[in-house]
Amino acid sequence: MSAFAPILDPAEIYRKSFAIIQAEADLARFDAGTRSVVVRMIHACGMVDLADDIVVSPGFALAARAALEAGAPVLCDVEMVRHGVISRLMPAGNEVACLLNDPRVREIAARDQTTRSAAQVDLWAERMEGAVIAIGNAPTALFRLLELIDAGAPRPAAIIGVPVGFVGAVESKEALTADPRGVEFLAVKGRRGGSALASSAVNALAGGLEGHG
Amino acid sequence: MSAFAPILDPAEIYRKSFAIIQAEADLARFDAGTRSVVVRMIHACGMVDLADDIVVSPGFALAARAALEAGAPVLCDVEMVRHGVISRLMPAGNEVACLLNDPRVREIAARDQTTRSAAQVDLWAERMEGAVIAIGNAPTALFRLLELIDAGAPRPAAIIGVPVGFVGAVESKEALTADPRGVEFLAVKGRRGGSALASSAVNALAGGLEGHG
Repeated sequence: MSAFAPILDPAEIYRKSFAIIQAEADLARFDAGTRSVVVRMIHACGMVDLADDIVVSPGFALAARAALEAGAPVLCDVEMVRHGVISRLMPAGNEVACLLNDPRVREIAARDQTTRSAAQVDLWAERMEGAVIAIGNAPTALFRLLELIDAGAPRPAAIIGVPVGFVGAVESKEALTADPRGVEFLAVKGRRGGSALASSAVNALAGGLEGHG
Repeated sequence: MSAFAPILDPAEIYRKSFAIIQAEADLARFDAGTRSVVVRMIHACGMVDLADDIVVSPGFALAARAALEAGAPVLCDVEMVRHGVISRLMPAGNEVACLLNDPRVREIAARDQTTRSAAQVDLWAERMEGAVIAIGNAPTALFRLLELIDAGAPRPAAIIGVPVGFVGAVESKEALTADPRGVEFLAVKGRRGGSALASSAVNALAGGLEGHG
């Protein structure tokens, strides 16, 4: 790499990135565990002002970490989120699943006249008790999740609700943060979100939180 | 979905999203083909001001589209990019590849004391002639690509250069846009970028451009 002389050591790239984020982002309102998650999310999107749009319940980071340590599955709305999760970081060999391409999803979507993203959430129910949910793409999946919880579905341990975009994203995240149904949550208010934010939050939880085993 | 009444029809969600983007984003400086790509990238990140940071060569969209129609492979720096690409959109059943987990990559990375992301670029060389390159994560991969082209490697048809982050992302994109080595390119200047932006650009090119077959 003679021409450019960039930093090539992965550990050094991480260390320097996290130092820049700590210096530039306003992280004062977060506890140590949540801060680990927010730093990793900022790292994934390159925007330190993401911190200002984070809405998080006080117990989120420790509850989600405890769930992963207890072997909880991670349920993702799209394959990009699943493939962004670093499986080797998982503390208990946790399952990381996306059911969007399950053959039953098309039938449910046609029956309920909804998106495949929302339809798959019906298939989560049987493993949702105590799970960590990571929604990085589809507002319709987050709406459906809240609806199923209201209808008595098993409660997840934590919801990472960061769908992105122009139709339903803002509203679905407002529905979560205004009434999280007693479930721990982290959301990014506004239009911003995305699969990289969802998987980076999972990776922070899986890799171990600052100030916590 | 009685409680929320969100829009659930996928075609309607797309249509409304693209209408909002067309209304809010400043797209006047782009030709019709490039506009299709930029709209889809904005859709993926939820930020209309992304348009202001796009740096693109005049022939990018048509050259990249023509390459895909001719069967060119798409080479991705990370699995998230590969899994964000919608294969069924590809006009010629094009290969969409990520070689990050190729068993040879660890050896090359150790030998050259570099990242796995950069090491895999050495393995792209044999299929790089006329290919579409999609770098959504690793600045080191973009630096290595430019270095290989300077050393005489086969030229890709187009480079989507949107690595993200705090260490090397800005510099790697400046290296591309300041001297694209005669290769068509699209980049997002600054720290922003990411796998969703890379794969959404590929999906726009694959799905067909506005004002072009």
